[in-house]
Amino acid sequence: MKLSSLQDLFLHTLQDVYYAEKHILKALPGMAKKAEDTALRDAFTVHEAETKTQIERLETVFEMLGETAKGVKCHAIEGILKEATEIMDDCDDPDALDAGMIAAAQAVEHYEFTRYGTLASWARTLGHTDAIALLEASRDEEIGADVKLTKLAEACLNRQATA
Amino acid sequence: MKLSSLQDLFLHTLQDVYYAEKHILKALPGMAKKAEDTALRDAFTVHEAETKTQIERLETVFEMLGETAKGVKCHAIEGILKEATEIMDDCDDPDALDAGMIAAAQAVEHYEFTRYGTLASWARTLGHTDAIALLEASRDEEIGADVKLTKLAEACLNRQATA
Repeated sequence: MKLSSLQDLFLHTLQDVYYAEKHILKALPGMAKKAEDTALRDAFTVHEAETKTQIERLETVFEMLGETAKGVKCHAIEGILKEATEIMDDCDDPDALDAGMIAAAQAVEHYEFTRYGTLASWARTLGHTDAIALLEASRDEEIGADVKLTKLAEACLNRQATA
Repeated sequence: MKLSSLQDLFLHTLQDVYYAEKHILKALPGMAKKAEDTALRDAFTVHEAETKTQIERLETVFEMLGETAKGVKCHAIEGILKEATEIMDDCDDPDALDAGMIAAAQAVEHYEFTRYGTLASWARTLGHTDAIALLEASRDEEIGADVKLTKLAEACLNRQATA
């Protein structure tokens, strides 16, 4: 690919995040199934619904730009999800597994929220005014998901400390 | 690998972050060299020094645990840095390249700060009291680096908006 302007970079990153969200959507049901704690299982299921909305928002942004919605391979999310899969395969203690899946999910949320933050800033510079609110809505949702995971991690670790 | 407890997971994640930091240390001089903006170049150089300190802190934590400092392949950082390399190879506009490298560096910082946050929480649960302050110091440094990059991104984008 050739990236010759901020607009090229914006479109490329949009495609990167679109690919990432579609892969996260596929990974979440497996994480929910493996979760020992009911509240964590519910959090993964809620985030699955949020991810569907985030994909729709990205499709709206592609449409606003007059572009076809498509993904480009996102090496970052592939690496982050590969680590999550390894933990899920290799951890045989249910409480430690929950702690590991929360940590993996937080790495996913952090990746996404920095990407949406970047895209919103670039949209502002490029004058894609309609896209800003959509990208910021997804960014704020990712921050909210991360805060929720931190609380679930605390509860999970408290259970292990008092076990 | 077999992870049978939170302690196993803690040691594994420590090795994962150790590998990540060593790879980031190798990537930073190339990013500094490619940066158009002097302040961005300086920020990458300052972060190189911070990364060296973070590696030393991890080595101290390994020592506290009576373990040899070693890394395990961190797929997440490999993916995140691969994206950074692609942007550096494919972007031929200096201002857009700076914006792209800032975004890539922010993805790195976010990955690291969530990992250090997780490790500090796990250290607290596991009673590795001495390790907590070291892990939190690195976490706070990563947050500081991310805040600095956000400011550099704003300056970089303002230049492009008024060009």
